Amino acid sequence: MFSRLFAPRVTAHAHCDLPCGVYDPAQARIEAESVKGTQEKYQANEDADFRVRALIIKEQRAEAVKHHLSVLWSDYFKAPHFEKYPELHQLFNDALKAASATKASTDPKTGEKLLELIAQIDTIFWETKKA
Amino acid sequence: MFSRLFAPRVTAHAHCDLPCGVYDPAQARIEAESVKGTQEKYQANEDADFRVRALIIKEQRAEAVKHHLSVLWSDYFKAPHFEKYPELHQLFNDALKAASATKASTDPKTGEKLLELIAQIDTIFWETKKA
Amino acid sequence: MFSRLFAPRVTAHAHCDLPCGVYDPAQARIEAESVKGTQEKYQANEDADFRVRALIIKEQRAEAVKHHLSVLWSDYFKAPHFEKYPELHQLFNDALKAASATKASTDPKTGEKLLELIAQIDTIFWETKKA
Amino acid sequence: MFSRLFAPRVTAHAHCDLPCGVYDPAQARIEAESVKGTQEKYQANEDADFRVRALIIKEQRAEAVKHHLSVLWSDYFKAPHFEKYPELHQLFNDALKAASATKASTDPKTGEKLLELIAQIDTIFWETKKA
Amino acid sequence: MFSRLFAPRVTAHAHCDLPCGVYDPAQARIEAESVKGTQEKYQANEDADFRVRALIIKEQRAEAVKHHLSVLWSDYFKAPHFEKYPELHQLFNDALKAASATKASTDPKTGEKLLELIAQIDTIFWETKKA
Amino acid sequence: MFSRLFAPRVTAHAHCDLPCGVYDPAQARIEAESVKGTQEKYQANEDADFRVRALIIKEQRAEAVKHHLSVLWSDYFKAPHFEKYPELHQLFNDALKAASATKASTDPKTGEKLLELIAQIDTIFWETKKA
Repeated sequence: MFSRLFAPRVTAHAHCDLPCGVYDPAQARIEAESVKGTQEKYQANEDADFRVRALIIKEQRAEAVKHHLSVLWSDYFKAPHFEKYPELHQLFNDALKAASATKASTDPKTGEKLLELIAQIDTIFWETKKA
Repeated sequence: MFSRLFAPRVTAHAHCDLPCGVYDPAQARIEAESVKGTQEKYQANEDADFRVRALIIKEQRAEAVKHHLSVLWSDYFKAPHFEKYPELHQLFNDALKAASATKASTDPKTGEKLLELIAQIDTIFWETKKA
Repeated sequence: MFSRLFAPRVTAHAHCDLPCGVYDPAQARIEAESVKGTQEKYQANEDADFRVRALIIKEQRAEAVKHHLSVLWSDYFKAPHFEKYPELHQLFNDALKAASATKASTDPKTGEKLLELIAQIDTIFWETKKA
Repeated sequence: MFSRLFAPRVTAHAHCDLPCGVYDPAQARIEAESVKGTQEKYQANEDADFRVRALIIKEQRAEAVKHHLSVLWSDYFKAPHFEKYPELHQLFNDALKAASATKASTDPKTGEKLLELIAQIDTIFWETKKA
Repeated sequence: MFSRLFAPRVTAHAHCDLPCGVYDPAQARIEAESVKGTQEKYQANEDADFRVRALIIKEQRAEAVKHHLSVLWSDYFKAPHFEKYPELHQLFNDALKAASATKASTDPKTGEKLLELIAQIDTIFWETKKA
Repeated sequence: MFSRLFAPRVTAHAHCDLPCGVYDPAQARIEAESVKGTQEKYQANEDADFRVRALIIKEQRAEAVKHHLSVLWSDYFKAPHFEKYPELHQLFNDALKAASATKASTDPKTGEKLLELIAQIDTIFWETKKA
């Protein structure tokens, strides 16, 4: 079933307008899921070394989230988008700060909040793609 | 409409069994779409500097594809998968070599071939997730 | 003479409020100077290989500019700053897009424009530090 | 006031003689300030996870210091400089070892020592720029 | 004595057949020795911060092992090799999983096992070079 | 035959005195062979895109050489070594500048010169290991 959903997205991305032109909030989302997954693993395991590794990996994945979000905000979204969605600047700044917050916390709720903000960006992103 | 498709995938990934435990062939696919997009841009623009930039970016994106594929092959797929899908080793090796081939070519057909191999991996991946 | 200017800045940065807490737009500025310097070198040398190298290096330095700017926008600047400087979101977005523009151009004027936007950010940054 | 100090440095860097040609010990210094800032934060916070994060970040920032110092030593400084400043080789080796020492210690004095060695390099650097 | 052993290897590598064409399992082996060395240091030192640093460094070195192994498997080894050594796919997958296992353990035996698998790959590699 | 040469080196590296403690000039040498190999490939192929790729890869491999050399100079070699081998500082600076020179040239002689300087460092390195 999923392979059918898979195919059209490939096609949809072909309408690119930059040297690469392929953007997808899924990149930020998948890394944010890793952040949340790592937080859940941390909570479920009290071994000290395991927890250090969880912190190392969470730091890297949260940084990857920030990178993917920055690319969307600076490279994909343009003036007409910011006019239509005036909340977009603040939404991205909030999402980036939420990613930083997951670095400083092992509470999966911070990962969940990050995912919610990315989902809001994702909704707007695909609206602009349909337009 | 897409936000509905989006949500269940987030949930599906929550069943992780490793320090991070979140895997998704979409990471390799999106980078491979960038490779193909860059090849198409290259073909459509004869400016020498533009083409150099396309080659630089294609090299990076194809390397990212290889990294994401290697992670899937070594970290996600395990002995039971290789028993059930004995073609998996060769499929991954072919996909990695196809990614190398996109570095050496500006023909979008090489990018397309890479995407097809990733789609085969994607199909198997989601079958193992459903099992 | 410069060593005297040097010392107080070290002291000024000691008042950090985060795990690292040291921010300085000079990091973005120095990389942007490299971008502009590379563009000038490109213009002054017609050797094909030299120009390819200039494009490779410019791509890397412009990416470093974008990273340093993103860090400032998401990590240093906070809600009270955005209230006091409502233009800050757009200024950062413009600066990031100006950095992308230097990737796509070998005209030192694009590097100069990037430096001007960073200088505006720098002015606001040091105002907030004095406050 | 600072914006005036800012401008001339931009101009000063324009006299570059390499593909990029822009060097500035400030890059090493800012990262070294982060190292020292992280050590101070570590000392002020006994939370185990916070301290692990401080160690992760310190490791990265100290590595960045080493990279920037190596670039100065191998790319900017040349034979005439080493003749005029015969202590330069040892000074750089000491600074690099001081950066390694900050990785192995959470005592801000090690960060301070690193900053002092970078300040010595900075003084020589700007003397050679004036010459 | 070693300089004599050193020289012929340089010559041997000159017969390359790709853009770079130089491969050597020594790259993976040296990083794996670092992994094992770090595990031994960890066992010999009970200081909490030292152990955190050992975990950070081990994570990086094990990742470097994985990268070098992936390059050998996807770029150097080709169809005729896989026909002659049908165990090669599984051997590489085992070695990559052994590298992941060293991330999750501070037992030098896991580093030793990784080195043994790399030694098996090394033996096959040099056999194919002689052929 | 090579597997016998291989084994003792593994053992020899076990006497490490730092968090990781494993050093080997082979890391710099293998990357420098890649540099030279890339220069030879460049000379043998007049296709414009192939040559751009050769320049991209050469830039990366030469940078890797510089990193590995810097690590040896700053982390492995210590005061007693510099006393016994007073030429060591200049030798490393020359080698690093030779690596930079390979970035700026497609002449395999520059790669060869780099390899010769690394071989001199290698000789000294293994003398200090035997001592």
